Amino acid sequence: MTQKTAPVVVLVAPQLGENIGMVARAMLNFGLTELRLVSPRNGWPNPAAGPASAGADQVLNEATVYDDISTSVADCNRVFTTAMTVRRMLKDVITPAEAVRQALALPASTARTAWVFGPERTGLYSGEVAMGDSVISIPTNSDFGSLNLAMAMTVMGYEWMRQTTDQPARYLAGDETGPALRYDLDGLLAHLDTELTVREYFFPEHRAATMRQNVRSIFQRLTLTAAEVRTMRGVVKSLASPEQRISKG
Amino acid sequence: MTQKTAPVVVLVAPQLGENIGMVARAMLNFGLTELRLVSPRNGWPNPAAGPASAGADQVLNEATVYDDISTSVADCNRVFTTAMTVRRMLKDVITPAEAVRQALALPASTARTAWVFGPERTGLYSGEVAMGDSVISIPTNSDFGSLNLAMAMTVMGYEWMRQTTDQPARYLAGDETGPALRYDLDGLLAHLDTELTVREYFFPEHRAATMRQNVRSIFQRLTLTAAEVRTMRGVVKSLASPEQRISKG
Repeated sequence: MTQKTAPVVVLVAPQLGENIGMVARAMLNFGLTELRLVSPRNGWPNPAAGPASAGADQVLNEATVYDDISTSVADCNRVFTTAMTVRRMLKDVITPAEAVRQALALPASTARTAWVFGPERTGLYSGEVAMGDSVISIPTNSDFGSLNLAMAMTVMGYEWMRQTTDQPARYLAGDETGPALRYDLDGLLAHLDTELTVREYFFPEHRAATMRQNVRSIFQRLTLTAAEVRTMRGVVKSLASPEQRISKG
Repeated sequence: MTQKTAPVVVLVAPQLGENIGMVARAMLNFGLTELRLVSPRNGWPNPAAGPASAGADQVLNEATVYDDISTSVADCNRVFTTAMTVRRMLKDVITPAEAVRQALALPASTARTAWVFGPERTGLYSGEVAMGDSVISIPTNSDFGSLNLAMAMTVMGYEWMRQTTDQPARYLAGDETGPALRYDLDGLLAHLDTELTVREYFFPEHRAATMRQNVRSIFQRLTLTAAEVRTMRGVVKSLASPEQRISKG
Protein backbone atom coordinates (compact mmCIF):
# COMPACT_ATOMS: atom_id res chain seq x y z
CA MET A 1 0.00 0.00 0.00
CA THR A 2 1.18 3.52 -0.79
CA GLN A 3 2.26 5.46 2.25
CA LYS A 4 -0.63 7.63 3.39
CA THR A 5 -0.55 10.59 5.71
CA ALA A 6 -2.18 9.61 8.98
CA PRO A 7 -5.29 11.60 9.94
CA VAL A 8 -5.12 14.68 12.14
CA VAL A 9 -6.99 14.34 15.45
CA VAL A 10 -9.00 17.37 16.62
CA LEU A 11 -10.40 17.53 20.17
CA VAL A 12 -13.06 20.21 20.56
CA ALA A 13 -13.28 21.80 24.03
CA PRO A 14 -11.75 18.83 25.88
CA GLN A 15 -12.45 19.09 29.60
CA LEU A 16 -9.87 16.96 31.40
CA GLY A 17 -6.12 16.89 30.91
CA GLU A 18 -6.16 13.17 31.77
CA ASN A 19 -8.39 12.50 28.78
CA ILE A 20 -6.15 14.51 26.46
CA GLY A 21 -3.24 12.41 27.71
CA MET A 22 -5.08 9.14 27.18
CA VAL A 23 -6.09 10.22 23.68
CA ALA A 24 -2.42 11.00 22.93
CA ARG A 25 -1.46 7.52 24.13
CA ALA A 26 -4.13 5.84 22.00
CA MET A 27 -3.04 7.93 19.00
CA LEU A 28 0.61 6.97 19.27
CA ASN A 29 -0.30 3.32 19.90
CA PHE A 30 -1.70 3.29 16.39
CA GLY A 31 0.85 5.54 14.73
CA LEU A 32 -1.05 8.84 14.78
CA THR A 33 0.92 11.86 15.96
CA GLU A 34 -0.83 15.09 15.00
CA LEU A 35 -3.10 16.39 17.78
CA ARG A 36 -5.02 19.68 17.58
CA LEU A 37 -6.97 21.20 20.45
CA VAL A 38 -9.84 23.62 19.95
CA SER A 39 -10.41 25.78 23.05
CA PRO A 40 -9.33 23.27 25.71
CA ARG A 41 -11.30 24.12 28.87
CA ASN A 42 -8.30 24.48 31.16
CA GLY A 43 -5.87 25.95 28.64
CA TRP A 44 -2.78 24.31 27.25
CA PRO A 45 -0.37 22.83 28.22
CA ASN A 46 -2.23 20.93 30.94
CA PRO A 47 -0.06 19.25 33.61
CA ALA A 48 -2.46 16.31 33.96
CA ALA A 49 -2.01 15.24 30.35
CA GLY A 50 1.60 14.02 30.56
CA PRO A 51 1.21 11.30 33.20
CA ALA A 52 -1.94 9.96 31.52
CA SER A 53 -0.19 9.69 28.17
CA ALA A 54 2.12 6.93 29.45
CA GLY A 55 5.03 8.27 27.43
CA ALA A 56 3.33 9.74 24.38
CA ASP A 57 5.13 13.05 25.06
CA GLN A 58 5.91 13.58 21.43
CA VAL A 59 2.21 13.90 20.62
CA LEU A 60 1.52 16.28 23.52
CA ASN A 61 4.58 18.45 22.91
CA GLU A 62 3.65 18.99 19.29
CA ALA A 63 -0.06 19.56 19.93
CA THR A 64 -1.38 22.86 18.59
CA VAL A 65 -4.25 25.03 19.85
CA TYR A 66 -7.01 26.73 17.84
CA ASP A 67 -9.91 29.04 18.60
CA ASP A 68 -12.46 27.28 16.42
CA ILE A 69 -13.03 24.12 14.41
CA SER A 70 -12.87 25.85 11.01
CA THR A 71 -9.34 27.09 11.60
CA SER A 72 -8.22 23.76 13.00
CA VAL A 73 -9.16 21.86 9.84
CA ALA A 74 -8.53 24.55 7.22
CA ASP A 75 -5.54 22.68 5.76
CA CYS A 76 -7.43 19.36 5.46
CA ASN A 77 -9.17 17.94 2.40
CA ARG A 78 -11.72 15.83 4.15
CA VAL A 79 -13.19 16.33 7.60
CA PHE A 80 -14.96 13.64 9.59
CA THR A 81 -16.90 14.60 12.69
CA THR A 82 -18.02 12.05 15.27
CA ALA A 83 -21.42 11.59 16.87
CA MET A 84 -23.43 8.92 18.63
CA THR A 85 -26.61 9.89 16.82
CA VAL A 86 -27.34 12.32 14.01
CA ARG A 87 -30.57 14.24 14.36
CA ARG A 88 -32.37 16.93 12.43
CA MET A 89 -29.86 17.19 9.60
CA LEU A 90 -29.35 15.62 6.21
CA LYS A 91 -25.96 14.02 6.56
CA ASP A 92 -23.83 11.15 5.35
CA VAL A 93 -23.33 8.82 8.34
CA ILE A 94 -20.56 6.24 8.04
CA THR A 95 -18.81 3.54 10.07
CA PRO A 96 -15.19 3.88 11.25
CA ALA A 97 -14.19 1.32 8.62
CA GLU A 98 -15.86 3.35 5.86
CA ALA A 99 -14.19 6.56 7.10
CA VAL A 100 -10.74 5.00 6.85
CA ARG A 101 -11.58 3.53 3.44
CA GLN A 102 -12.59 7.00 2.22
CA ALA A 103 -9.43 8.57 3.66
CA LEU A 104 -7.25 5.95 1.98
CA ALA A 105 -9.06 6.51 -1.32
CA LEU A 106 -7.89 10.13 -1.51
CA PRO A 107 -4.82 10.78 -3.69
CA ALA A 108 -1.74 10.11 -1.53
CA SER A 109 0.04 13.33 -2.44
CA THR A 110 -2.69 15.67 -1.22
CA ALA A 111 -4.69 13.60 1.26
CA ARG A 112 -5.05 15.23 4.63
CA THR A 113 -7.99 14.11 6.68
CA ALA A 114 -9.21 15.18 10.10
CA TRP A 115 -11.19 13.34 12.76
CA VAL A 116 -13.08 15.74 15.04
CA PHE A 117 -14.15 14.61 18.52
CA GLY A 118 -16.41 16.57 20.88
CA PRO A 119 -16.08 17.26 24.60
CA GLU A 120 -16.41 14.39 27.07
CA ARG A 121 -19.79 15.27 28.54
CA THR A 122 -21.80 16.39 25.53
CA GLY A 123 -20.00 15.37 22.38
CA LEU A 124 -20.15 17.78 19.45
CA TYR A 125 -23.14 20.09 19.16
CA SER A 126 -25.38 19.63 16.18
CA GLY A 127 -23.89 22.59 14.31
CA GLU A 128 -20.40 21.21 14.88
CA VAL A 129 -21.37 17.73 13.71
CA ALA A 130 -22.69 19.36 10.53
CA MET A 131 -19.21 20.74 9.75
CA GLY A 132 -18.02 17.28 8.82
CA ASP A 133 -18.11 16.13 5.21
CA SER A 134 -19.37 12.91 6.75
CA VAL A 135 -20.19 11.88 10.30
CA ILE A 136 -18.58 8.83 11.87
CA SER A 137 -20.87 6.73 14.04
CA ILE A 138 -19.09 3.96 15.96
CA PRO A 139 -21.32 0.87 16.20
CA THR A 140 -22.08 0.19 19.87
CA ASN A 141 -24.62 -1.46 22.14
CA SER A 142 -27.75 0.64 21.69
CA ASP A 143 -28.56 0.34 25.41
CA PHE A 144 -25.07 1.37 26.59
CA GLY A 145 -23.44 3.24 23.77
CA SER A 146 -21.51 6.08 25.38
CA LEU A 147 -17.80 5.60 24.70
CA ASN A 148 -15.20 7.44 26.70
CA LEU A 149 -13.11 9.83 24.60
CA ALA A 150 -9.94 7.70 24.67
CA MET A 151 -11.95 4.59 23.79
CA ALA A 152 -13.47 6.32 20.77
CA MET A 153 -9.93 7.34 19.77
CA THR A 154 -8.79 3.74 20.29
CA VAL A 155 -11.48 2.47 17.92
CA MET A 156 -10.53 4.97 15.22
CA GLY A 157 -6.78 4.43 15.69
CA TYR A 158 -7.20 0.67 15.54
CA GLU A 159 -9.34 0.96 12.41
CA TRP A 160 -6.62 3.07 10.77
CA MET A 161 -3.97 0.52 11.75
CA ARG A 162 -6.13 -2.42 10.67
CA GLN A 163 -6.45 -1.03 7.15
CA THR A 164 -2.84 0.09 6.78
CA THR A 165 -0.81 -2.57 8.60
CA ASP A 166 1.03 -5.30 6.75
CA GLN A 167 0.54 -7.71 9.67
CA PRO A 168 -0.85 -10.93 8.19
CA ALA A 169 -4.24 -12.14 9.43
CA ARG A 170 -2.50 -15.29 10.58
CA TYR A 171 1.04 -16.57 10.89
CA LEU A 172 2.88 -19.28 12.76
CA ALA A 173 5.30 -17.82 15.32
CA GLY A 174 8.50 -19.73 16.09
CA ASP A 175 8.22 -21.87 12.98
CA GLU A 176 11.78 -22.66 11.86
CA THR A 177 11.00 -25.50 9.49
CA GLY A 178 7.89 -24.42 7.59
CA PRO A 179 4.89 -26.62 6.86
CA ALA A 180 5.57 -30.32 6.45
CA LEU A 181 5.75 -31.92 3.03
CA ARG A 182 2.94 -34.30 2.21
CA TYR A 183 5.70 -36.95 1.99
CA ASP A 184 6.58 -36.38 5.67
CA LEU A 185 2.94 -36.39 6.78
CA ASP A 186 2.25 -39.62 4.91
CA GLY A 187 5.34 -41.10 6.58
CA LEU A 188 3.91 -40.26 10.00
CA LEU A 189 0.50 -41.69 9.11
CA ALA A 190 2.06 -44.91 7.75
CA HIS A 191 4.12 -45.27 10.91
CA LEU A 192 1.02 -44.77 13.06
CA ASP A 193 -0.96 -47.18 10.86
CA THR A 194 1.65 -49.93 11.21
CA GLU A 195 1.77 -49.68 14.98
CA LEU A 196 -2.04 -49.58 15.26
CA THR A 197 -2.51 -52.49 12.84
CA VAL A 198 -0.27 -54.87 14.79
CA ARG A 199 -2.30 -53.98 17.89
CA GLU A 200 -5.59 -54.68 16.06
CA TYR A 201 -6.88 -51.12 16.55
CA PHE A 202 -8.67 -51.18 13.17
CA PHE A 203 -11.49 -53.48 14.21
CA PRO A 204 -14.03 -54.60 13.10
CA GLU A 205 -12.75 -55.14 9.58
CA HIS A 206 -15.68 -53.46 7.78
CA ARG A 207 -15.04 -50.21 9.67
CA ALA A 208 -11.29 -50.19 9.14
CA ALA A 209 -11.35 -47.91 6.09
CA THR A 210 -13.49 -45.30 7.84
CA MET A 211 -11.36 -45.46 10.98
CA ARG A 212 -8.22 -44.86 8.88
CA GLN A 213 -9.87 -41.86 7.21
CA ASN A 214 -10.88 -40.38 10.57
CA VAL A 215 -7.35 -40.65 11.96
CA ARG A 216 -5.90 -39.12 8.79
CA SER A 217 -8.43 -36.28 8.93
CA ILE A 218 -7.30 -35.22 12.41
CA PHE A 219 -3.67 -34.88 11.38
CA GLN A 220 -4.40 -33.26 8.04
CA ARG A 221 -6.52 -30.54 9.61
CA LEU A 222 -3.56 -29.47 11.74
CA THR A 223 -1.29 -28.26 8.94
CA LEU A 224 1.67 -29.60 10.91
CA THR A 225 5.15 -28.16 10.46
CA ALA A 226 8.05 -30.40 9.49
CA ALA A 227 9.35 -30.19 13.07
CA GLU A 228 5.94 -31.14 14.47
CA VAL A 229 5.77 -34.22 12.23
CA ARG A 230 9.10 -35.31 13.72
CA THR A 231 7.73 -34.67 17.22
CA MET A 232 4.67 -36.82 16.50
CA ARG A 233 6.82 -39.64 15.10
CA GLY A 234 8.70 -39.62 18.38
CA VAL A 235 5.43 -39.70 20.30
CA VAL A 236 4.13 -42.68 18.29
CA LYS A 237 7.44 -44.52 18.66
CA SER A 238 7.45 -43.94 22.39
CA LEU A 239 3.83 -45.06 22.87
CA ALA A 240 4.55 -48.24 20.89
CA SER A 241 7.57 -49.17 23.02
CA PRO A 242 7.49 -51.14 26.30
CA GLU A 243 6.83 -49.24 29.51
CA GLN A 244 10.06 -48.37 31.35
CA ARG A 245 10.50 -48.75 35.05
CA ILE A 246 11.25 -45.25 36.29
CA SER A 247 14.25 -45.16 38.57
CA LYS A 248 13.60 -43.24 41.76
CA GLY A 249 17.24 -43.08 42.85
CA MET B 1 -26.21 -13.33 10.33
CA THR B 2 -27.17 -16.05 12.79
CA GLN B 3 -27.16 -14.92 16.39
CA LYS B 4 -23.84 -15.89 17.95
CA THR B 5 -22.96 -16.14 21.60
CA ALA B 6 -20.63 -13.27 22.47
CA PRO B 7 -17.18 -14.26 23.70
CA VAL B 8 -16.38 -14.65 27.40
CA VAL B 9 -13.75 -12.20 28.68
CA VAL B 10 -11.16 -13.58 31.11
CA LEU B 11 -8.86 -11.23 33.05
CA VAL B 12 -5.89 -13.03 34.57
CA ALA B 13 -4.57 -11.55 37.83
CA PRO B 14 -5.88 -8.03 37.19
CA GLN B 15 -4.21 -5.52 39.49
CA LEU B 16 -6.46 -2.46 39.72
CA GLY B 17 -10.19 -2.33 40.34
CA GLU B 18 -10.36 0.77 38.13
CA ASN B 19 -9.12 -1.27 35.20
CA ILE B 20 -11.63 -4.06 35.85
CA GLY B 21 -14.34 -1.40 35.84
CA MET B 22 -13.12 0.16 32.59
CA VAL B 23 -12.95 -3.26 30.96
CA ALA B 24 -16.56 -3.89 32.05
CA ARG B 25 -17.57 -0.58 30.48
CA ALA B 26 -15.80 -1.38 27.21
CA MET B 27 -17.37 -4.85 27.19
CA LEU B 28 -20.91 -3.56 27.62
CA ASN B 29 -20.31 -0.79 25.06
CA PHE B 30 -19.91 -3.54 22.50
CA GLY B 31 -22.53 -5.94 23.81
CA LEU B 32 -20.29 -8.33 25.78
CA THR B 33 -21.49 -9.22 29.25
CA GLU B 34 -19.68 -12.28 30.60
CA LEU B 35 -16.62 -11.36 32.67
CA ARG B 36 -14.43 -13.91 34.48
CA LEU B 37 -11.62 -13.02 36.85
CA VAL B 38 -8.71 -15.35 37.58
CA SER B 39 -7.08 -14.55 40.93
CA PRO B 40 -7.71 -10.79 41.01
CA ARG B 41 -4.89 -9.26 43.08
CA ASN B 42 -7.11 -7.44 45.55
CA GLY B 43 -9.92 -9.97 45.70
CA TRP B 44 -13.47 -9.55 44.46
CA PRO B 45 -15.67 -7.53 44.59
CA ASN B 46 -13.39 -4.51 44.39
CA PRO B 47 -14.97 -1.15 45.38
CA ALA B 48 -12.94 0.77 42.77
CA ALA B 49 -14.47 -1.14 39.88
CA GLY B 50 -18.01 0.26 40.06
CA PRO B 51 -17.27 3.98 39.57
CA ALA B 52 -14.86 3.22 36.72
CA SER B 53 -17.45 1.13 34.91
CA ALA B 54 -19.66 4.19 34.27
CA GLY B 55 -22.81 2.16 34.79
CA ALA B 56 -21.82 -1.28 33.53
CA ASP B 57 -22.95 -2.74 36.87
CA GLN B 58 -24.61 -5.69 35.23
CA VAL B 59 -21.23 -6.95 33.99
CA LEU B 60 -19.52 -6.47 37.36
CA ASN B 61 -22.35 -7.98 39.40
CA GLU B 62 -22.35 -11.13 37.30
CA ALA B 63 -18.55 -11.50 37.14
CA THR B 64 -17.26 -14.84 38.41
CA VAL B 65 -13.92 -15.68 40.03
CA TYR B 66 -11.60 -18.63 39.32
CA ASP B 67 -8.34 -19.94 40.71
CA ASP B 68 -6.69 -20.69 37.41
CA ILE B 69 -7.07 -20.16 33.67
CA SER B 70 -7.91 -23.80 32.88
CA THR B 71 -10.97 -23.77 35.10
CA SER B 72 -12.08 -20.38 33.80
CA VAL B 73 -12.24 -21.58 30.18
CA ALA B 74 -13.21 -25.23 30.73
CA ASP B 75 -16.68 -24.71 29.21
CA CYS B 76 -15.36 -22.95 26.09
CA ASN B 77 -14.68 -24.50 22.70
CA ARG B 78 -12.03 -22.13 21.54
CA VAL B 79 -9.66 -20.07 23.66
CA PHE B 80 -7.77 -17.04 22.41
CA THR B 81 -4.98 -15.62 24.54
CA THR B 82 -3.53 -12.17 23.95
CA ALA B 83 0.09 -11.08 23.71
CA MET B 84 2.14 -8.24 22.28
CA THR B 85 4.83 -10.60 21.04
CA VAL B 86 5.07 -14.37 20.90
CA ARG B 87 8.51 -15.75 21.69
CA ARG B 88 10.05 -19.18 21.99
CA MET B 89 6.95 -21.15 21.08
CA LEU B 90 5.39 -22.56 17.96
CA LYS B 91 2.02 -20.86 17.90
CA ASP B 92 -0.69 -19.59 15.60
CA VAL B 93 -0.68 -15.78 15.86
CA ILE B 94 -3.73 -13.96 14.52
CA THR B 95 -5.19 -10.47 14.24
CA PRO B 96 -8.30 -9.38 16.19
CA ALA B 97 -10.27 -9.52 12.93
CA GLU B 98 -9.16 -13.10 12.28
CA ALA B 99 -10.02 -14.11 15.87
CA VAL B 100 -13.57 -12.85 15.46
CA ARG B 101 -13.86 -14.49 12.05
CA GLN B 102 -12.80 -17.81 13.60
CA ALA B 103 -15.25 -17.41 16.49
CA LEU B 104 -18.09 -16.64 14.08
CA ALA B 105 -17.18 -19.68 11.97
CA LEU B 106 -17.90 -22.06 14.85
CA PRO B 107 -21.34 -23.73 14.81
CA ALA B 108 -23.80 -21.32 16.44
CA SER B 109 -25.35 -23.91 18.74
CA THR B 110 -22.12 -24.89 20.48
CA ALA B 111 -19.80 -21.92 19.96
CA ARG B 112 -18.36 -20.56 23.16
CA THR B 113 -15.14 -18.66 22.82
CA ALA B 114 -12.94 -16.97 25.40
CA TRP B 115 -10.57 -14.03 25.16
CA VAL B 116 -7.87 -14.16 27.85
CA PHE B 117 -6.06 -10.96 28.88
CA GLY B 118 -3.04 -10.79 31.19
CA PRO B 119 -2.29 -8.45 34.09
CA GLU B 120 -1.66 -4.76 33.40
CA ARG B 121 2.08 -4.66 34.05
CA THR B 122 3.34 -7.86 32.48
CA GLY B 123 0.65 -9.33 30.26
CA LEU B 124 0.30 -13.10 30.20
CA TYR B 125 3.37 -15.20 30.93
CA SER B 126 4.68 -17.36 28.16
CA GLY B 127 3.13 -20.54 29.60
CA GLU B 128 -0.23 -18.77 29.85
CA VAL B 129 -0.05 -17.47 26.29
CA ALA B 130 0.57 -21.06 25.18
CA MET B 131 -2.78 -22.13 26.65
CA GLY B 132 -4.60 -20.37 23.82
CA ASP B 133 -5.60 -22.30 20.74
CA SER B 134 -4.39 -19.20 18.96
CA VAL B 135 -2.79 -15.99 20.18
CA ILE B 136 -4.29 -12.61 19.33
CA SER B 137 -1.78 -9.90 18.50
CA ILE B 138 -3.31 -6.43 18.11
CA PRO B 139 -1.49 -4.48 15.40
CA THR B 140 0.12 -1.39 16.95
CA ASN B 141 2.96 1.07 16.46
CA SER B 142 6.09 -1.04 16.90
CA ASP B 143 7.80 1.82 18.77
CA PHE B 144 4.91 2.45 21.19
CA GLY B 145 2.84 -0.69 21.25
CA SER B 146 1.75 -1.14 24.86
CA LEU B 147 -2.03 -0.86 25.08
CA ASN B 148 -3.76 -0.30 28.37
CA LEU B 149 -6.04 -3.19 29.38
CA ALA B 150 -9.30 -1.33 28.70
CA MET B 151 -8.01 -0.17 25.31
CA ALA B 152 -7.13 -3.73 24.32
CA MET B 153 -10.63 -4.73 25.40
CA THR B 154 -12.04 -1.81 23.36
CA VAL B 155 -10.27 -3.06 20.25
CA MET B 156 -11.57 -6.60 20.68
CA GLY B 157 -15.09 -5.44 21.57
CA TYR B 158 -15.19 -3.11 18.57
CA GLU B 159 -13.96 -5.87 16.29
CA TRP B 160 -16.73 -8.16 17.57
CA MET B 161 -19.30 -5.42 16.99
CA ARG B 162 -17.88 -4.55 13.57
CA GLN B 163 -18.34 -8.09 12.34
CA THR B 164 -21.76 -8.70 13.90
CA THR B 165 -23.54 -5.32 13.59
CA ASP B 166 -26.10 -4.66 10.90
CA GLN B 167 -25.17 -0.96 10.80
CA PRO B 168 -24.62 -0.10 7.13
CA ALA B 169 -21.19 1.20 6.11
CA ARG B 170 -22.93 4.35 4.95
CA TYR B 171 -26.39 5.87 5.12
CA LEU B 172 -27.96 9.28 4.77
CA ALA B 173 -29.44 10.52 8.05
CA GLY B 174 -32.50 12.76 7.95
CA ASP B 175 -33.31 11.85 4.37
CA GLU B 176 -37.08 12.01 4.00
CA THR B 177 -37.31 12.05 0.23
CA GLY B 178 -34.70 9.54 -0.93
CA PRO B 179 -32.27 10.04 -3.81
CA ALA B 180 -33.46 12.28 -6.64
CA LEU B 181 -34.72 10.80 -9.87
CA ARG B 182 -32.53 11.40 -12.90
CA TYR B 183 -35.53 13.34 -14.28
CA ASP B 184 -35.34 15.82 -11.36
CA LEU B 185 -31.56 16.19 -11.62
CA ASP B 186 -31.77 16.83 -15.37
CA GLY B 187 -34.45 19.43 -14.68
CA LEU B 188 -32.09 21.23 -12.30
CA LEU B 189 -29.22 21.08 -14.79
CA ALA B 190 -31.44 22.37 -17.61
CA HIS B 191 -32.64 25.24 -15.42
CA LEU B 192 -29.03 26.10 -14.53
CA ASP B 193 -27.98 25.82 -18.17
CA THR B 194 -30.70 28.19 -19.33
CA GLU B 195 -29.80 30.86 -16.80
CA LEU B 196 -26.06 30.53 -17.52
CA THR B 197 -26.58 30.57 -21.30
CA VAL B 198 -28.49 33.87 -21.31
CA ARG B 199 -25.64 35.36 -19.27
CA GLU B 200 -23.02 34.03 -21.79
CA TYR B 201 -21.26 31.90 -19.18
CA PHE B 202 -20.46 29.19 -21.77
CA PHE B 203 -17.76 31.12 -23.56
CA PRO B 204 -15.71 30.70 -25.72
CA GLU B 205 -17.90 28.59 -27.96
CA HIS B 206 -15.39 25.79 -28.56
CA ARG B 207 -15.13 25.14 -24.80
CA ALA B 208 -18.88 25.21 -24.15
CA ALA B 209 -19.38 21.43 -24.35
CA THR B 210 -16.57 20.75 -21.86
CA MET B 211 -17.82 23.45 -19.52
CA ARG B 212 -21.29 21.89 -19.53
CA GLN B 213 -19.81 18.47 -18.75
CA ASN B 214 -17.80 19.87 -15.86
CA VAL B 215 -20.83 21.52 -14.28
CA ARG B 216 -22.88 18.35 -14.72
CA SER B 217 -20.11 16.27 -13.17
CA ILE B 218 -20.16 18.31 -9.95
CA PHE B 219 -23.87 17.77 -9.39
CA GLN B 220 -23.85 14.13 -10.43
CA ARG B 221 -21.09 13.25 -7.99
CA LEU B 222 -23.25 14.50 -5.11
CA THR B 223 -26.02 11.90 -5.32
CA LEU B 224 -28.48 14.63 -4.35
CA THR B 225 -31.75 13.79 -2.65
CA ALA B 226 -35.05 14.91 -4.17
CA ALA B 227 -35.32 17.61 -1.47
CA GLU B 228 -31.80 18.84 -2.22
CA VAL B 229 -32.58 19.16 -5.92
CA ARG B 230 -35.51 21.41 -4.96
CA THR B 231 -33.19 23.42 -2.68
CA MET B 232 -30.69 23.91 -5.51
CA ARG B 233 -33.45 24.99 -7.93
CA GLY B 234 -34.39 27.67 -5.41
CA VAL B 235 -30.74 28.73 -5.15
CA VAL B 236 -30.38 29.02 -8.93
CA LYS B 237 -33.64 30.93 -9.23
CA SER B 238 -32.60 33.33 -6.50
CA LEU B 239 -29.14 33.94 -7.98
CA ALA B 240 -30.72 34.66 -11.36
CA SER B 241 -33.12 37.25 -9.98
CA PRO B 242 -32.39 40.95 -9.50
CA GLU B 243 -30.65 42.03 -6.31
CA GLN B 244 -33.12 43.23 -3.68
CA ARG B 245 -32.59 46.30 -1.61
CA ILE B 246 -32.49 45.07 1.96
CA SER B 247 -34.68 47.12 4.21
CA LYS B 248 -32.91 48.25 7.35
CA GLY B 249 -36.02 49.57 9.06
